[in-house]
Amino acid sequence: MDAPMSEPGPLTDLVKALRALPGVGVRTARRMAYHLLQNDPQAARALSRALSDAIEGLVHCERCNGFSQTPICVVCSDSGRDQSLLCIVETPSDQNSIEATHNYLGLYYILMGRIAPLEGVGAQELNLKRLLDRVSDGRVEEVILATNFTSEGETTAHYLGEALRARGLKVSRLARGVPAGSELEYVDAGTVAWAMMERKPA
Amino acid sequence: MDAPMSEPGPLTDLVKALRALPGVGVRTARRMAYHLLQNDPQAARALSRALSDAIEGLVHCERCNGFSQTPICVVCSDSGRDQSLLCIVETPSDQNSIEATHNYLGLYYILMGRIAPLEGVGAQELNLKRLLDRVSDGRVEEVILATNFTSEGETTAHYLGEALRARGLKVSRLARGVPAGSELEYVDAGTVAWAMMERKPA
Ligand SMILES: [Zn+2]
Ligand SMILES: [Zn+2]
Repeated sequence: MDAPMSEPGPLTDLVKALRALPGVGVRTARRMAYHLLQNDPQAARALSRALSDAIEGLVHCERCNGFSQTPICVVCSDSGRDQSLLCIVETPSDQNSIEATHNYLGLYYILMGRIAPLEGVGAQELNLKRLLDRVSDGRVEEVILATNFTSEGETTAHYLGEALRARGLKVSRLARGVPAGSELEYVDAGTVAWAMMERKPA
Repeated sequence: MDAPMSEPGPLTDLVKALRALPGVGVRTARRMAYHLLQNDPQAARALSRALSDAIEGLVHCERCNGFSQTPICVVCSDSGRDQSLLCIVETPSDQNSIEATHNYLGLYYILMGRIAPLEGVGAQELNLKRLLDRVSDGRVEEVILATNFTSEGETTAHYLGEALRARGLKVSRLARGVPAGSELEYVDAGTVAWAMMERKPA
């Protein structure tokens, strides 16, 4: 249902703004708007504040590319971590999946995406030059490719494997304990831990 | 995936705030947060502003209970509308559905819900006293019950029909052109227009 002329502007604007959320169409946006305004204005205020705080307060970590409140994030700043190991993941959720195993003590690089030629996302769009700079710090010895076991994730792993080996780095891939076709985020911690331990040269 | 200790606070807060949206679980909230921060910070800013503008700028219209920027909304303020006809709907979306027929020129009352005993929503929770005050303005002659043709909508129509008839008002119900069990919001304008014209004494 389109907005009629009589709908108040702030409501029309809110519905439009909610549609920027991934997977939210106009009907869902409208229901979200009515729900917040009618039943939970406090949650609407909290969401408004959380959005602006996150936008103003977060930057990309200079080392791992993840979201951070400081130029170098808490993980990258942790001197107790093994500086010679770098695990490459697609998203912060994937990093969370690996952290949840409490079994990996190296560092990360978060691609914030993956190579997807059909969507026009190549090495340049992913800013992979930044990753290649990162691995050239003289301390990284092994890179673990932990992109998803989807077709885009495998393409990305293949591309990165070639580029990183060409720089003389040891490159490994998570073991295929992860069911083919699935995404890391949806795999239980035990399986991820096992795949991490069983990683093989790529 | 729960947030690890290493996740920056503003990101954890944003994920938590997004979960207040109806139908949004933690995984979806996390994807929404990453998407906004990574790909569309401008949309995040716009959503933040739209939420606070809507919360600060909208009130419930004193006459129809709908969302409005002014104490009396533009529909209720329109002297060209038939003041003797009052159509009762569950939500602003349902009002939009009827407006879209360009066939109804009376006024509205928006319940912002429906009687749902199983959810603990009765006449009091819906503030039906306010509706009964509204219809006692001396100008309303006929009330059209346009609640949904669901079991809660029918219960609400039945309850309202009795209360309104007891006050000497003529009460009608949308004709059953609307398929039983369906919700107004999902019915095409032609069907709604037909059901409006064929309305019967209730
Ligand atoms: Zn970092
Ligand atoms: Zn009004």
